[in-house]
Amino acid sequence: MKANDRLNERPDDRGRPAPSGRGSGQAVMDLNADLGEGFGRWTLTDDEALLDIVTSANVACGFHAGDPSIMRRVCARAAERGVRIGAQVSYRDLAGFGRRAIDMPPEELADEVTYQIGALEVFARAAGSRVTYVKPHGALYNRVVADEGQAAAVIEGIRRADPSLPVLGLPGSALHRAAEAAGTPTVTEAFADRAYTAAGTLVSRREPGAVLHDEDEVVTRSVRMARERQVIAITGELVPVEARSLCVHGDTPSAARLARRIHAALSEAGTAVEPFT
Amino acid sequence: MKANDRLNERPDDRGRPAPSGRGSGQAVMDLNADLGEGFGRWTLTDDEALLDIVTSANVACGFHAGDPSIMRRVCARAAERGVRIGAQVSYRDLAGFGRRAIDMPPEELADEVTYQIGALEVFARAAGSRVTYVKPHGALYNRVVADEGQAAAVIEGIRRADPSLPVLGLPGSALHRAAEAAGTPTVTEAFADRAYTAAGTLVSRREPGAVLHDEDEVVTRSVRMARERQVIAITGELVPVEARSLCVHGDTPSAARLARRIHAALSEAGTAVEPFT
Amino acid sequence: MKANDRLNERPDDRGRPAPSGRGSGQAVMDLNADLGEGFGRWTLTDDEALLDIVTSANVACGFHAGDPSIMRRVCARAAERGVRIGAQVSYRDLAGFGRRAIDMPPEELADEVTYQIGALEVFARAAGSRVTYVKPHGALYNRVVADEGQAAAVIEGIRRADPSLPVLGLPGSALHRAAEAAGTPTVTEAFADRAYTAAGTLVSRREPGAVLHDEDEVVTRSVRMARERQVIAITGELVPVEARSLCVHGDTPSAARLARRIHAALSEAGTAVEPFT
Amino acid sequence: MKANDRLNERPDDRGRPAPSGRGSGQAVMDLNADLGEGFGRWTLTDDEALLDIVTSANVACGFHAGDPSIMRRVCARAAERGVRIGAQVSYRDLAGFGRRAIDMPPEELADEVTYQIGALEVFARAAGSRVTYVKPHGALYNRVVADEGQAAAVIEGIRRADPSLPVLGLPGSALHRAAEAAGTPTVTEAFADRAYTAAGTLVSRREPGAVLHDEDEVVTRSVRMARERQVIAITGELVPVEARSLCVHGDTPSAARLARRIHAALSEAGTAVEPFT
Repeated sequence: MKANDRLNERPDDRGRPAPSGRGSGQAVMDLNADLGEGFGRWTLTDDEALLDIVTSANVACGFHAGDPSIMRRVCARAAERGVRIGAQVSYRDLAGFGRRAIDMPPEELADEVTYQIGALEVFARAAGSRVTYVKPHGALYNRVVADEGQAAAVIEGIRRADPSLPVLGLPGSALHRAAEAAGTPTVTEAFADRAYTAAGTLVSRREPGAVLHDEDEVVTRSVRMARERQVIAITGELVPVEARSLCVHGDTPSAARLARRIHAALSEAGTAVEPFT
Repeated sequence: MKANDRLNERPDDRGRPAPSGRGSGQAVMDLNADLGEGFGRWTLTDDEALLDIVTSANVACGFHAGDPSIMRRVCARAAERGVRIGAQVSYRDLAGFGRRAIDMPPEELADEVTYQIGALEVFARAAGSRVTYVKPHGALYNRVVADEGQAAAVIEGIRRADPSLPVLGLPGSALHRAAEAAGTPTVTEAFADRAYTAAGTLVSRREPGAVLHDEDEVVTRSVRMARERQVIAITGELVPVEARSLCVHGDTPSAARLARRIHAALSEAGTAVEPFT
Repeated sequence: MKANDRLNERPDDRGRPAPSGRGSGQAVMDLNADLGEGFGRWTLTDDEALLDIVTSANVACGFHAGDPSIMRRVCARAAERGVRIGAQVSYRDLAGFGRRAIDMPPEELADEVTYQIGALEVFARAAGSRVTYVKPHGALYNRVVADEGQAAAVIEGIRRADPSLPVLGLPGSALHRAAEAAGTPTVTEAFADRAYTAAGTLVSRREPGAVLHDEDEVVTRSVRMARERQVIAITGELVPVEARSLCVHGDTPSAARLARRIHAALSEAGTAVEPFT
Repeated sequence: MKANDRLNERPDDRGRPAPSGRGSGQAVMDLNADLGEGFGRWTLTDDEALLDIVTSANVACGFHAGDPSIMRRVCARAAERGVRIGAQVSYRDLAGFGRRAIDMPPEELADEVTYQIGALEVFARAAGSRVTYVKPHGALYNRVVADEGQAAAVIEGIRRADPSLPVLGLPGSALHRAAEAAGTPTVTEAFADRAYTAAGTLVSRREPGAVLHDEDEVVTRSVRMARERQVIAITGELVPVEARSLCVHGDTPSAARLARRIHAALSEAGTAVEPFT
């Protein structure tokens, strides 16, 4: 069993009985959210409320958002509550919130990834915790779904910081392929409030309908993703979704409430909300 | 013996005989230089040449200079040559190269110091080395000579990263007092090419004559600092100087040549050039 | 009559009768607010609502807040509504929102002021308007109350852009003295929601009680400032206040509502809310 | 005759006799160089020397290089020497020197272009001059050769600042097509030290051989470009080149010397070095 298999394994594979009648479903699901996305005077994510709900905190590292004081506070709160700390690495782009792809030489991208992980790690350690995974943010996340060069650079940047750090991303992405090639563990994730194409990829934020705003629908999708490993694509098809972690967004006023509803619905449906290790 | 005593101790205190007739002189001296002070397309310090000469590299961490790729390269070269890596922490001020004091709330300053140390540490470790000391840069260095609040913040920021990390600075400075109060080790340093006041502090760069440009004079001063623990102040007096490390500047075209001459002159005068641990 | 007198003159000086029984009061008052203080993904000021109320918009120019797209939008809306556009110039400090004083060489400060005015002017012109005044922001505003060197630099920076541009500031400040010495017009202002010292200066934001949060009190103070040219200092004394413009804050959720109340109270008390030219 | 025709017209079209035997050659040629590309402590271009040679100065506006003090100084020197001032607009990318394409929403790109022009214009005016043209820098220059959306955004950004401002670029580029569609004047340029493809476009800097380092060859190419309107492509073919302006690079130590040689060679060959208006 490879390292990256281990992190995605389902508890029922390890002898725990699967919930009755839902043998193929996800018995455990991690909930991750982007946190610490303010900067200086500006706030965005409701870090306090979300840290009471999620199991994994993708903490901004200062390149698209997040300043050192925010990073320290989020790490401290996450550590207190036993929430896992992940490095939410990004292009260097405060003005664009990391939502604009940058054609970077891979070597520079790798170095920027390493830098961000190191900057977060020192706060995680100071709080008595550790950075335990990495997740690319925004445009970088989207870019490494298909861009082999940048995907390999992200993995290289992670491995220089710590070869054992798993990377959270879309199953089948260039990022996960690069991780597997390098021996970096992977964790699969899905997005409850993002539209999917029939190919199982995310609809771009620049397209209409890319983000779902109906909370009931988002909750329903979350449960289907966990229990049936499926999602209804924007074109109507049922497409398979593989996810050990579910991303809930943190940058809307109602983010915490929605996350709480998803958490409750998953639990009720028999999927335990637990971190991925 | 306290930790900070240990780092400044002279080998002759440990039984090694002092050079004949110079019992009060410094039998060993560290040479430190600011390195990695380019940014993106811009270069400044002659890192390659200086790493062949100095024993301690104050590596810029991205706040006044230094980008992740430069940091990685300088750490790799330093590690190869056995040069110690120090975090040259600064105010966040690329536009002013960290030479403009900023009235920061102490808590934010502490967090920025921690961030920078973490960002450098990951590259030092990737190179098989470690960050083994911290030195404030530019306006921050000058500010913490007297500003108790910012001095305490710098020490707090260092201690969060690693309470055992020594801090390089002027003896008698607020920074060293704050370090001693907190139990952080200190290392004393002197500047071969900077004018001193009769009080033993540095003449501000904004004053005429603050920086010495005559290489012969700088070399002579270096030896006097090491052998006689004295320097001639800008007003003519001989003032005592306590230094376990001598700072040579890296940001001039002739920096490496001058550093080489100082190294040679110290050795010739019987002071071994060795790192401070 | 000098240029700077002209801008502060009271209409009653020009023959219009003063409101009965309030001969010394301010018959007209400008309302200014800091606007456009978001950056990229982050929002702060309720620009839309405030532009319906204030007569002068202090538009952030990108150094402490404000990106080019925000600047364009705020200028366009201000022009549509006949609100005057002022350049809210700041230290280069996105991370600190311009609230940290920076010891800049005066020449560099002057150049940064000029740059910001130019950057805003092009958007004001594109909207069919003009930059018609300048107001320093945050720490720069506070610094130039007493710092003669930085005050002169700000005025120099303004004059290079346009010698006829008036500068908004505290009466008696170093900024206004520098302006008068250089022939730059001045406009006096007061702060409805900030505590005053007995000397008539603002209590620092770092002191307790510096910002008033009781809306009724703020409204009452506003009227007293306009009608009686006085304010109750934090220590209880009545101190004289000279203001042709009243600053209302834009960076709180209730800012627009409070501004509306002040506007109404001034009008009711017989002070017309009108821009200062 | 349209505005953009006028700027590219050859003097011989206006009755001046063409140099004997070279009727199709360029009787006048502008020399442009990127200037002011330092930032804070860092220097790059030899502005003083180049301003003695070139006829058009592409002045960095702070987004990839260039701080306000540099902008003021370069504008002042350019104005003194009668060198035309152009806005060298760029992606916001100090860390990458504007050499990394950014997938920006067109509207934001337009606003950033407008901002940069405004910021430079104020310094040009303070020096008694004006911004008289715009030239995209680095990755933006390359991107708008083919990217219609970003090309239109650049033109939109220029037009908001001043619809009469001409844009310097490659003939046949998306940028020039967008300019022509909008009524913005265009000026054609060629690069003496860059390799060309058989299609007449620039070989990417990431390809080997993209930049020519043999000064004699660069001088020879410059003259051929001016006199024969041709260049030898990297694949050996002679390809036509249309240029009213020749770009000489300013960011190498030998830049000024090479520019001087090109200037002399053009003059000797009968092509007058004159600005494009």
